[in-house]
Amino acid sequence: MIRMASGWFYLSCLLLGSLGSMCILFTIYWMQYWRGGFAWNGSIYMFNWHPVLMVAGMVVFYGGASLVYRLPQSWVGPKLPWKLLHAALHLMAFILTVVGLVAVFTFHNHGKIANLYSLHSWLGITAVFLFACQWCLGFAVFLLPWASMWLRSLLKPIHVFFGAAILSLSIASVISGINEKLFFSLKNTTRPYNSLPSEAVFANSTGMLVVAFGLLVLYILLASSWKRPEPGILTDRQPLLHDGE
Amino acid sequence: MIRMASGWFYLSCLLLGSLGSMCILFTIYWMQYWRGGFAWNGSIYMFNWHPVLMVAGMVVFYGGASLVYRLPQSWVGPKLPWKLLHAALHLMAFILTVVGLVAVFTFHNHGKIANLYSLHSWLGITAVFLFACQWCLGFAVFLLPWASMWLRSLLKPIHVFFGAAILSLSIASVISGINEKLFFSLKNTTRPYNSLPSEAVFANSTGMLVVAFGLLVLYILLASSWKRPEPGILTDRQPLLHDGE
Repeated sequence: MIRMASGWFYLSCLLLGSLGSMCILFTIYWMQYWRGGFAWNGSIYMFNWHPVLMVAGMVVFYGGASLVYRLPQSWVGPKLPWKLLHAALHLMAFILTVVGLVAVFTFHNHGKIANLYSLHSWLGITAVFLFACQWCLGFAVFLLPWASMWLRSLLKPIHVFFGAAILSLSIASVISGINEKLFFSLKNTTRPYNSLPSEAVFANSTGMLVVAFGLLVLYILLASSWKRPEPGILTDRQPLLHDGE
Repeated sequence: MIRMASGWFYLSCLLLGSLGSMCILFTIYWMQYWRGGFAWNGSIYMFNWHPVLMVAGMVVFYGGASLVYRLPQSWVGPKLPWKLLHAALHLMAFILTVVGLVAVFTFHNHGKIANLYSLHSWLGITAVFLFACQWCLGFAVFLLPWASMWLRSLLKPIHVFFGAAILSLSIASVISGINEKLFFSLKNTTRPYNSLPSEAVFANSTGMLVVAFGLLVLYILLASSWKRPEPGILTDRQPLLHDGE
């Protein structure tokens, strides 16, 4: 039984990996092919790092890092190595995110463009702020040794919920960001956004891919039965480990 | 114990009701005070119904309707009346949504503006389409008498997950819609969006309220312990009903 569950799990992982890679590659291709590519000099080409790094950091790496405890290998044996992996992957996601923010702020400041006025930016910066709080609180409570089991089991569902909530906010930020970028880029052209030029179809599709990736992460995280069984609590999932093989 | 759980539940309901009312009232106020109010004649004043009805239908009524089985009263006694209430409230949410779509399509067609080109519209129409599928499948499987208990318990977690997923898509659509509307409305004015005039602050805040409402619904739906206990399955939540009172 565990083998069958693992089979489906790895199929989902394959789908997740493909979707995640496509999200990043599509964003890179959009920026490279239609928006002139990348640079790190305060120009619009520096801005182009922003969508790529936010999709990579706040969605793809973040989503992957969230699912560490869904790996069947993590269900048995000591939990500490998996906690370290979970924290390290999220730290990588956070670093990509911060570099993505530096790209947009530098571009704005260089071009005397206002920062943090749109709803996209309000929601995005809220998501990044909550991510920072979540990482620090998670590190303090679940990795450092001082917190009691009681405190950990009290905070765990809140940690999982906020993890999923931050991903939802990120997806909403990405969608509003792609939408806004297309209105900016495709005005005063012969083929504006509302005539659906190929760039618009491609970037809209990238947005829909990000949504599909996010929903798959949330499904595996919240609704699937691939969860590490709690020690000492009998649930309807535990037979997977006891009856299996 | 059940009394304490109920106390917190009603406090959350109060917060949910306040947030939901504020989402709708703020959207109405935005459209009335800054965008010239409402009409049903194909003009921009007809468009103004669109944000109000989508926030009311796809977020507030939808969110409220999702939480019917979290009412402690629904935990005991026959489930059918609660199912009917759940289906009826969602039908009301769907009707508001359809009228909201009619408002924007009529405005577009009347003004020879293209339909369904932006990522906002792609995501929004996907959310409405999934909502329609979800309602029909829910009606067929959980209300009509033909489906077996086995099929129902197989589909229930999927129904709950898609319910939450559709709400997340709606929130992302609302955020990108408010963002896009502000870029449309606040260009070629003395105080554009990037100078954060009072309309922008107000509408951005409305968007943040919608996000807060959506997250509270998702918390009560997915992460809280206010769930109708499954008959015959022992979970760590059931003591609420057995020990209480």
